[in-house]
Amino acid sequence: MSTHKIPRHVSVSCWQALIDHKKDISRTSLQEMFIQNPGRAKSFSAENNKLYVDYSKHYITEETIQLLISMAQSTDLNGAIQKLFSGATINWTENKAAMHMALRAPADKTYSVEGEDVSKQVHDELQHMQDFVTALHSGEFRGHTDKPIETVFNLGIDGSDLGAKLVTAALSNFAVSDIDIHFVSNVDINDMNSALEKSDAETTLFIISSKSFTTKETLFNAETAIKWLREHGCKSPDKHLLAVTANHDAAKALGVKDENIFHIWEWVGGRYSLWSAIGLPIAIRIGMDHFRDFLSGASAMDQHFCEQTMENNLPVILALIDIWYINFFHAETMAIFPYDHSLNMLPAYIGQLIMESNGKQIDKEGNQIKYNTSPVIWGGTGNNAQHAYFQCLHQGTHLVPVDFIVSLISNSENKSQHQELLANCLAQGEALMHGHTEVDRAETEWAAYKNIPGNRPSTTILLDELSPATLGSLLCLYEHRCFVQAHIWNINPFDQWGVELGKNIAKQISEELNEATDNNVTHDSSTERLISYYRKKNESC
Amino acid sequence: MSTHKIPRHVSVSCWQALIDHKKDISRTSLQEMFIQNPGRAKSFSAENNKLYVDYSKHYITEETIQLLISMAQSTDLNGAIQKLFSGATINWTENKAAMHMALRAPADKTYSVEGEDVSKQVHDELQHMQDFVTALHSGEFRGHTDKPIETVFNLGIDGSDLGAKLVTAALSNFAVSDIDIHFVSNVDINDMNSALEKSDAETTLFIISSKSFTTKETLFNAETAIKWLREHGCKSPDKHLLAVTANHDAAKALGVKDENIFHIWEWVGGRYSLWSAIGLPIAIRIGMDHFRDFLSGASAMDQHFCEQTMENNLPVILALIDIWYINFFHAETMAIFPYDHSLNMLPAYIGQLIMESNGKQIDKEGNQIKYNTSPVIWGGTGNNAQHAYFQCLHQGTHLVPVDFIVSLISNSENKSQHQELLANCLAQGEALMHGHTEVDRAETEWAAYKNIPGNRPSTTILLDELSPATLGSLLCLYEHRCFVQAHIWNINPFDQWGVELGKNIAKQISEELNEATDNNVTHDSSTERLISYYRKKNESC
Repeated sequence: MSTHKIPRHVSVSCWQALIDHKKDISRTSLQEMFIQNPGRAKSFSAENNKLYVDYSKHYITEETIQLLISMAQSTDLNGAIQKLFSGATINWTENKAAMHMALRAPADKTYSVEGEDVSKQVHDELQHMQDFVTALHSGEFRGHTDKPIETVFNLGIDGSDLGAKLVTAALSNFAVSDIDIHFVSNVDINDMNSALEKSDAETTLFIISSKSFTTKETLFNAETAIKWLREHGCKSPDKHLLAVTANHDAAKALGVKDENIFHIWEWVGGRYSLWSAIGLPIAIRIGMDHFRDFLSGASAMDQHFCEQTMENNLPVILALIDIWYINFFHAETMAIFPYDHSLNMLPAYIGQLIMESNGKQIDKEGNQIKYNTSPVIWGGTGNNAQHAYFQCLHQGTHLVPVDFIVSLISNSENKSQHQELLANCLAQGEALMHGHTEVDRAETEWAAYKNIPGNRPSTTILLDELSPATLGSLLCLYEHRCFVQAHIWNINPFDQWGVELGKNIAKQISEELNEATDNNVTHDSSTERLISYYRKKNESC
Repeated sequence: MSTHKIPRHVSVSCWQALIDHKKDISRTSLQEMFIQNPGRAKSFSAENNKLYVDYSKHYITEETIQLLISMAQSTDLNGAIQKLFSGATINWTENKAAMHMALRAPADKTYSVEGEDVSKQVHDELQHMQDFVTALHSGEFRGHTDKPIETVFNLGIDGSDLGAKLVTAALSNFAVSDIDIHFVSNVDINDMNSALEKSDAETTLFIISSKSFTTKETLFNAETAIKWLREHGCKSPDKHLLAVTANHDAAKALGVKDENIFHIWEWVGGRYSLWSAIGLPIAIRIGMDHFRDFLSGASAMDQHFCEQTMENNLPVILALIDIWYINFFHAETMAIFPYDHSLNMLPAYIGQLIMESNGKQIDKEGNQIKYNTSPVIWGGTGNNAQHAYFQCLHQGTHLVPVDFIVSLISNSENKSQHQELLANCLAQGEALMHGHTEVDRAETEWAAYKNIPGNRPSTTILLDELSPATLGSLLCLYEHRCFVQAHIWNINPFDQWGVELGKNIAKQISEELNEATDNNVTHDSSTERLISYYRKKNESC
């Protein structure tokens, strides 16, 4: 196996030109760049699908963008985008396509997976969702004692949890139903018990979401749910169970009725699946019309990504700026700060999307890579995050490119509170860039401690409002940004082999915790000692 | 102003010895170290206050620890710890002591702040809390229509929010009251409205928590609360208001009755304040006996930190290992993974503690420092985080030291589910360290993609159980670890000047968003353009 210090498909001279250019850029600062060229705010911003993206507060000039685009062109980025949309088997390590764009396309748009048109299947399944949601909302769908459903539990983890949970919370102002929705993901009884205690088995529905229907945590919780239904007098749990899966047989074996099984396809990756029936909780909360708006917003961004030239292509530009920081300025992290309480799960969602997709170190040709890939994604909700983490951004020692996200119009009546959030969001971008030099007057003790160096980069994304369509566009923007990063890094963003090992070891350790039987597995002395410490404590109590 | 590449008070030869030693350590791996010395699990672990800490899966040998301790001794770390506990003015930029240890000390232990014994004041205030909590729980404390309180809102942000919220959630199994508690922190109406809608003004109490009583977000929400009370027929809102503050006059001016004002002291920093009356929501949920257990757990860790030799001092050892990674291996981030749903706010809490305390770049003498300080702290809850982020830890390109935290005994009846969490937690530590080499058999396509390099470090902290006392010890362990980091870096962990600038700019922008008046403030063209984009959109809707 050979190793590579730069992506193998990149033109070496293009990469070197960026290394050289970095030296020039490092001699100036954001403040200076704005003084030299007040027009840069206009040059480095774009409006699309009710998103306004300002990327002018970055270490870039026109030349930087040109050099980044040349570098991207040397890898045939355009060809890669076309290949993604063609439905080719681009997830090569799992022999699958990655055709989540088909899930959100209008009915008259044809998408094929490995040559087969999947548009009709997708829209049939959307109709299936629509029929169910209509029946649920009208009260026609009923539990075992013929009462309408009042509470829904979504049992799923990872891709079958976080996206739906994020969007359901974010769009609560678009709710058309007051059915309670709980998300249970972990094998953690505390996660489920408190919600079950308040629920009524006659009026509670469980959605079991797992593409493979072998996800341990989800099946664990599904069994707990079925047991709870039975213990509460339900003799036909199948009236309270839905499944979203590619594995219909396994769902049926657990007792889910055929008509209550919603299909997802092998060509939909878990962390790209909220656009499918995995999004059922969203549709239950906001209704199918709004859910279709959410899909349309994403589809419009798909079209933008597929059709725009690189200079005007938002996912491309933002991804190339990411590459600029990660591979040339050696930034190890990126932070996401939505200024909206209802988007508080967004940093975790984007973190999952990018870190699980791009936390890789083997390239397309199976070679070890020696350049950095996925950054650590972190963040929080403004204004809270300002009090918690911004000290470190303003006066700490790390370079952290920041994404600020805020909507212009409040979804609630209270305009002044929302304006306060917006003012804080814009102020932080300015403060990070501009910094502050404390005047050292006699009465100003400790001036040095009040200095803020500034020159810290950020992107600002304004949403006209937080709506199904704008949120769809926003999430899709990050999906494609993640794809472009992966393409430049010459890695496969659609697999996740790294998570298998821990699962296998957990299975062994689980046996050993249970009883002191010898399963012939040996561990390092640290793990051995932790296991025996548990056994000792457990026996003594 | 001079600049420093290593902390000014460190012995240069001690620092250099660590740089040299790093080269030796880098030639081996964790796997090899365990093979060479199976006894290292015992050597590099310790039990204290029902916490078992295993730090053997780190790039350390006996020599490393000795070199780190020598380096720490060259900075007079022991003297710094004694000075902290002496109540001296160690927060020099704000001219204050940092005496949060006094808040959790037993009544017979004397703590002085700048020479004044504060123990009695602290215990008087604890009695004040106890009297109130007793009256609240017994139903003696009543609202304006003489009904007992059923719902409590904690209005506070940052230190007046996150800690109390974390502990209230984490110790819900120790609840002695079923009073609903809501935490509202942000100036985000969505954050407050949904909870208010379900509340009854006759039985709702608001705790306004702000040391200065000038925190904009908190006062904003307090005004919303008072307005809501009045709109719901309450003519004496003072029966529904509590304040926790150092500024009694401001609380009274807002209409809080004298006996309903709980005191905090200037020598308590916001992010170290949950041990004071800022912890009222905790005491309301779990009762004063449990709250005092929580304080005792922390106090026991204080004693450990103050009295133990460096070799056996957990906060010291863990902090020195942090320094080892951050300043010698150039790790930029650290991750925290509690395997317990009820601790899901812990990574954010530790992030706030460390990043706000140690995200600094000016040393004690006012010099610019050129070595790294606070890492970015991130994380998540196991098992969820395994699905979301562990791909990046196992196969990504960054060195991320990890803290695993898990309790041995489940707080709920369901032992097997908890064992599953524990098994996963231990398995991830082993998998990160050990890695995996895929055998390249003919049928194993893509073997390279399944390889996991291993050699990734982690600490495992086992709690005998998740109880008030162990949680107190755990949080205190991180507080002192943070203090030791700051001491080595020669910075002040107790101020936060970096957050002021953004607040000031936000005030200006807020005026400009409101109306197109000229407040004579000029911004960069990016900020100007974002403001005018808002105005344009806002006028047109």
